[in-house]
Amino acid sequence: MRCRSCRGDAVIEIRRHHAAFCTEHFFTMFRTQVEKAIRRHQMMAPGDRILLAVSGGKDSLALWDVLLDLGYDVTGLYLGLGIAEYSDRSHDVARAFAAKRRARLLTVDLRRDYGYDIPTAGRRGSRSTCAVCGLSKRYVFNRAALEGDFDVVATGHNLDDEAATLLGNTLRWQTDAIARQSPALPGRDGMVKKVKPLHRLSELETAAYAFLRGIDYVVEECPLVAGNTQLRYKEAMNAIEQTSPGTKSQFFLGYLERGMPLFRSEDRAELRPCESCDQPTTGRFCAFCRARAQILGHRLGTDPGADLEPSDREVAQELSEEVLPAEIYARAAR
Amino acid sequence: MRCRSCRGDAVIEIRRHHAAFCTEHFFTMFRTQVEKAIRRHQMMAPGDRILLAVSGGKDSLALWDVLLDLGYDVTGLYLGLGIAEYSDRSHDVARAFAAKRRARLLTVDLRRDYGYDIPTAGRRGSRSTCAVCGLSKRYVFNRAALEGDFDVVATGHNLDDEAATLLGNTLRWQTDAIARQSPALPGRDGMVKKVKPLHRLSELETAAYAFLRGIDYVVEECPLVAGNTQLRYKEAMNAIEQTSPGTKSQFFLGYLERGMPLFRSEDRAELRPCESCDQPTTGRFCAFCRARAQILGHRLGTDPGADLEPSDREVAQELSEEVLPAEIYARAAR
Repeated sequence: MRCRSCRGDAVIEIRRHHAAFCTEHFFTMFRTQVEKAIRRHQMMAPGDRILLAVSGGKDSLALWDVLLDLGYDVTGLYLGLGIAEYSDRSHDVARAFAAKRRARLLTVDLRRDYGYDIPTAGRRGSRSTCAVCGLSKRYVFNRAALEGDFDVVATGHNLDDEAATLLGNTLRWQTDAIARQSPALPGRDGMVKKVKPLHRLSELETAAYAFLRGIDYVVEECPLVAGNTQLRYKEAMNAIEQTSPGTKSQFFLGYLERGMPLFRSEDRAELRPCESCDQPTTGRFCAFCRARAQILGHRLGTDPGADLEPSDREVAQELSEEVLPAEIYARAAR
Repeated sequence: MRCRSCRGDAVIEIRRHHAAFCTEHFFTMFRTQVEKAIRRHQMMAPGDRILLAVSGGKDSLALWDVLLDLGYDVTGLYLGLGIAEYSDRSHDVARAFAAKRRARLLTVDLRRDYGYDIPTAGRRGSRSTCAVCGLSKRYVFNRAALEGDFDVVATGHNLDDEAATLLGNTLRWQTDAIARQSPALPGRDGMVKKVKPLHRLSELETAAYAFLRGIDYVVEECPLVAGNTQLRYKEAMNAIEQTSPGTKSQFFLGYLERGMPLFRSEDRAELRPCESCDQPTTGRFCAFCRARAQILGHRLGTDPGADLEPSDREVAQELSEEVLPAEIYARAAR
């Protein structure tokens, strides 16, 4: 295989583009796709203070790498989930990357700062482990961005993530979640602007980028993710992509172009401050405070039981504006 | 396993309903689902003259069987596709069923009545074999219904068919095709009303019904179907259904309830009579006449080349109002 740009030896083939690239031109293509995403969706401007959600995996570190190279002012935020060696290794990797690139890394630790960790939450609460983890992440990132006066929260969601989430939301016709699955959600009512600059790049591409750039990242999956619905949607998309290369990108980018406008009216969530923490919510207490109270055995407010048992739909509209993982709707399957 | 209704020995388990049934109560459940579909979508009234598209497979014969038992006036229409032994056996089976139930069966033969057969069409035309077959069926059934003064055309599409088609249309965000994927499309401008009374029943259920009712049907798949895109969507849906029973039905019935209203405005096709055959079309000549002219090497109209090379989108809007198979968009993959 020859590089599309220079005809030199190719190191990677991108089937949906009918193209192969050498290392150097793969980097160029990768950065171009990130720039295109940023430009098309007006994700960030040069002076913006960007808070990047860093897990220590290939996606978040690849994104950090590209955004720094493009000259953006990016601070990483690592959230300690307390998942034993997996979390320790993730934190080490994030710290090492920050040190090497002289970038600032903030750390929030769920156990230290909020009194619980994810394995405990999965056992004690009424939500699945993945649901409470996703909820915690969205809450902590938004709150840290508000408190640190950041303009944008960036996450490393790639094309495979977005296509799988869209598939899950579409299979259930969760029209409100579909409406909110934009790669750039403007800020409003206490919600910081959220962007996903890797949404045009596949999982294979972010992995190849991190590997070829010599970035040390955590290769292992989270040990708690087994049976995760999202993984099954990814498998289904991969099976179709295998015989029809380009399906994922056609699905997600086609949604942005032709689907999203039809769903706009379905995003009806009205936000107000949570009575416990002041973060935005559609109810009296936000989903995070309710989940945390349940995990810690606390009571929220003076009216016992009030607002403690929200419907799945309320949970779905809560807090994030962002698309929630499929699991949050499937508490029964815990 | 015990029957949900009578606690007798069950012969079939329906996982998405968390239920099992004995033969008798399975028949009852099956008929109830057909009646529910007919009622909810006002598919047909007792006095209506119904033309049923009969392929000789489990779905069309199961539907014929139920509709006759429910007292409807149903005439079968068998379309000879000219696919060697497969077509011969299909015709025999359809004739035997009609004779046994003393029902009327009409026959149209593509070779005899239109000058080509499907294997030839697949080799000669610019469309895939499955695309030209689907196009021919929709054309012939609509035309026969108009000429025979029928009120409704019924087809045996089951839940698996509809979910796979919806998945294909959604993966491409073919919003006009999505808008038209109703199980009951009202008649208009030369298009006879089209209904799909089996859309609430899975492929497994129609097969079980036909088998348990002792209906002789063609078990083999069409020999030309290998590599069909629709089959791959079915496989993807089956993989998800396997771990999340109910996904197909949630997807398709959820679409009818929550998705379809959002797509209504996307069905913008305006129909007028084809200049060659008078059947409805969005262009000057209908897709069927164009395909047939191409297959037979004829020229349509006086303006050479006029309207002979429609875009994929035009083809998609043409003639049917019904959802077209995925293949029709994928002529390049022929």
